[in-house]
Amino acid sequence: MSETVALTVANLHERVEAIFRKAGLNSVQAGAITRVIVAAERDNCKSHGIYRIEGALRTIKAAKVAPDAVPELLAQDAAAIVRVDAKGGFANPAFELGLPALAERARSSGIAALAINNAVHFSALWVEVEALAGEGLAGLAMCPSYATVAPTGGNSPLLGTNPFAFGWPRREQPPYVFDSATSVPARGEIELHRRAGKQLPEGWAIDSDGRPTTDPVAALAGAMLSFGGDKGSAIGTMIELLAGAMIGDLTSPEALDLLGTTTLFPRHGELVIALSPGAFAAGRPGSPFSRAETLFEATVGQGARLPSQRRFSARAKSERDGISLSRQEVAQLDRFLEQGLGAV
Amino acid sequence: MSETVALTVANLHERVEAIFRKAGLNSVQAGAITRVIVAAERDNCKSHGIYRIEGALRTIKAAKVAPDAVPELLAQDAAAIVRVDAKGGFANPAFELGLPALAERARSSGIAALAINNAVHFSALWVEVEALAGEGLAGLAMCPSYATVAPTGGNSPLLGTNPFAFGWPRREQPPYVFDSATSVPARGEIELHRRAGKQLPEGWAIDSDGRPTTDPVAALAGAMLSFGGDKGSAIGTMIELLAGAMIGDLTSPEALDLLGTTTLFPRHGELVIALSPGAFAAGRPGSPFSRAETLFEATVGQGARLPSQRRFSARAKSERDGISLSRQEVAQLDRFLEQGLGAV
Repeated sequence: MSETVALTVANLHERVEAIFRKAGLNSVQAGAITRVIVAAERDNCKSHGIYRIEGALRTIKAAKVAPDAVPELLAQDAAAIVRVDAKGGFANPAFELGLPALAERARSSGIAALAINNAVHFSALWVEVEALAGEGLAGLAMCPSYATVAPTGGNSPLLGTNPFAFGWPRREQPPYVFDSATSVPARGEIELHRRAGKQLPEGWAIDSDGRPTTDPVAALAGAMLSFGGDKGSAIGTMIELLAGAMIGDLTSPEALDLLGTTTLFPRHGELVIALSPGAFAAGRPGSPFSRAETLFEATVGQGARLPSQRRFSARAKSERDGISLSRQEVAQLDRFLEQGLGAV
Repeated sequence: MSETVALTVANLHERVEAIFRKAGLNSVQAGAITRVIVAAERDNCKSHGIYRIEGALRTIKAAKVAPDAVPELLAQDAAAIVRVDAKGGFANPAFELGLPALAERARSSGIAALAINNAVHFSALWVEVEALAGEGLAGLAMCPSYATVAPTGGNSPLLGTNPFAFGWPRREQPPYVFDSATSVPARGEIELHRRAGKQLPEGWAIDSDGRPTTDPVAALAGAMLSFGGDKGSAIGTMIELLAGAMIGDLTSPEALDLLGTTTLFPRHGELVIALSPGAFAAGRPGSPFSRAETLFEATVGQGARLPSQRRFSARAKSERDGISLSRQEVAQLDRFLEQGLGAV
């Protein structure tokens, strides 16, 4: 008997959506979070795929997300700002609601921003910048998280892992996309080392006295470090300011205070900036897209990889051969569907 | 006899401006580049202070900058884009020309961008984001350079040192500002190691075969590395795309091809994005500025420094006690003024 089962994208979508409907989410919430979970699983981005269902169910069970939220597009005075109130639901339906308005404003204004407020967040941000690239737009997306990262030179958690994503549209190819935490490791990687009884690499974390540590238990009691020292720490702080304070939503320490745990999904805002290469290049020689390809060719030509290429390869394979899940994974999906919130 | 001389900011400005006027720059060009050079020297940011005069004179002498350029604010269809053609002059007067329009658009649209084209660049970008902070706006600034940095996983120069700056306005305090190259070292630091006969730290550079090296000569023949590995390399690439290809101006490899050397200042564009915290926070609880202060207090309170604090301390000292120059530095200013382009 084979150890794996291949599901079509549509079939996995149907199963995951049914789980969330059973767990009490309305169709807007269930549809949107299912789309991002299935997209991640399809891309073999396991850390944001069906692995996240359990955390979502726990967050629903703990009443830390509004299961019946219907996000609302708010009127704004500023012509290039689109604002969506997620109404305590997940960030994903709020982004889906705001995307058409954001794209339209970016095309007419050249640059525009989407501020999402009152959202529960768990998704990778590549989804957002890929969607913008699908509209022919370059995009930046960023959000806080909960305080688990020390600013460089400090000794205790203040910043979040604060992801930063960028996308650039390419013709006849998947977009140029990167999406990275501004901490060295993702939080889950430290927990995985702890469970495996393994030491951490140097430079990942400090203990509660602010001393470098390779002990995962000491690291979990201490803080993670920003990538790239001072520079990464400054970018993490920038994200707190722009996607927290500026949009009138929670910073990472405030999000942790509100939730009191890092085991459920945090509530905060998100900032997405869309730029129209057509508008920015207007009147200038050459095509921005052709000139970008020259840069990509030179990158690949010297043996460097473009980010997300592994994800796009996995996507092509999944679309051709189906999404490959282990029998244990399929059994867990069945259990979630059968038991609903009782499963967590 | 004292080894140093204290000059007032105004006196240093007068001397530097006279040098550039003597070297043939018109008043628009001379005034703007003098302001940034004097600001850097005042802030004890020696790498962008009077040390840069010689490079500017060499660039003028080599006819790689238009000495009589008058930048032009161009009409744009897109409401949130301001475009300035630097006309082959320095980037600084182009920024000064675009700043009021950029600030006005950011206030009315919430977010706006300034694209500078056809500029010769040598300045630190903190000048730009500090100026925006002075208008009560958050700002991002970025530009390519010449190709001296290998993309992570590659083996030869493609990206520039591509600086990335961010500023956030603070009440009754200098702004939160960072400005960093996206390469590990600045190019000049490798040259300084070579002259001193010192090995480089690990992780700065690769040789022409793509192997890690600590030999500065091999590094100069090879390439520098991005900060933060894949993440920094992706941010460097983003800057090539947004501040090069997207705005219809040169990427770092194109800038190097055009100039053929890294000993003169490169020609390319620059992208500055301004965001209005007032517009983004409209309708939300709390003040974005107060909430930002809470974050800064928590940062400083755990022993971490805010970026640019050393620069602001040096500024306060210079404004109080004058800018301290060595007698050799003053003598060189006198020589530049006397000999003009004959001095380089």
